[in-house]
Amino acid sequence: MSTTKRAETNGMKGLHFASRTSIEQVEEGNELAPKFDRDGLIACVTTEVMTGEVLMLGYMNREALELTILTGEAHYWSRSRQVLWRKGVTSGLVQTVVEIRIDDDQDALWLRVSLSAGTHSAPASCHVGYRSCFYRTVELKTGKISFAENTKTFDPKSVYGDAPNPTLL
Amino acid sequence: MSTTKRAETNGMKGLHFASRTSIEQVEEGNELAPKFDRDGLIACVTTEVMTGEVLMLGYMNREALELTILTGEAHYWSRSRQVLWRKGVTSGLVQTVVEIRIDDDQDALWLRVSLSAGTHSAPASCHVGYRSCFYRTVELKTGKISFAENTKTFDPKSVYGDAPNPTLL
Repeated sequence: MSTTKRAETNGMKGLHFASRTSIEQVEEGNELAPKFDRDGLIACVTTEVMTGEVLMLGYMNREALELTILTGEAHYWSRSRQVLWRKGVTSGLVQTVVEIRIDDDQDALWLRVSLSAGTHSAPASCHVGYRSCFYRTVELKTGKISFAENTKTFDPKSVYGDAPNPTLL
Repeated sequence: MSTTKRAETNGMKGLHFASRTSIEQVEEGNELAPKFDRDGLIACVTTEVMTGEVLMLGYMNREALELTILTGEAHYWSRSRQVLWRKGVTSGLVQTVVEIRIDDDQDALWLRVSLSAGTHSAPASCHVGYRSCFYRTVELKTGKISFAENTKTFDPKSVYGDAPNPTLL
């Protein structure tokens, strides 16, 4: 049995993450042994549970992963703002987790979520106002971009006000 | 208009990737201006086009992205092997790209692909032998792992032989 590390999370009982001891344990075992990268983060794909649409690709640190598992609400680490981020804390666009999957080498997560309506919008996920962050298509052969979502679901100004835009150049 | 960079790719005519000049251009524009990280990589979620199942989370360098756009077959950068990787080159488990999406800040891609049967297997994507790399579920509240795919689609030994396992501890 692997040694484990306990982390306390905002006063909640922490989870045990196993140490990574062998490829067989990581790939074929039933111990949660996530691999955080050199910044302490693990990548996370989030899809809408009914449609399968990819909503976003985010990152979690250890605390965000623990809180997501323990509370059933998606938490991320905002790389641009460098803060723990409970999705929907500002916008009301909460992601309720239906299922969490983890990949073969345990360095990526897949959240299947249902979306809540926001304080000023229908259910959506993207800070630009679209339902999915992946609202544009890159055309094969040419690389030209076109819009897959033609209209925004909400007006980001009315939801986020003057909060700094998280997009970095 | 942004300045652009041209890259030549294996003798194919290269694509223009725009320089990133403003948040509005990146989020709301129709210029492909991908953001590669400090390792020169961009994250890529790949889903199966009929089921919406997330197959894998991979990474592309500039050349892999260009080849994917130009050829319509998924190419990645293997971080563990540090090589350009045309998916299926060993296994025959080619991913034919139906659509490429890009996210709001253009630092993540979403490929919708159809899977080919392999040289020794039914259609699948994961080197461990499962259809999806995300073959395990992390239980809410407890963090316990269980298998969402109960049986492997193929025997990895018969497909990969003695090739080194790409999983790193």
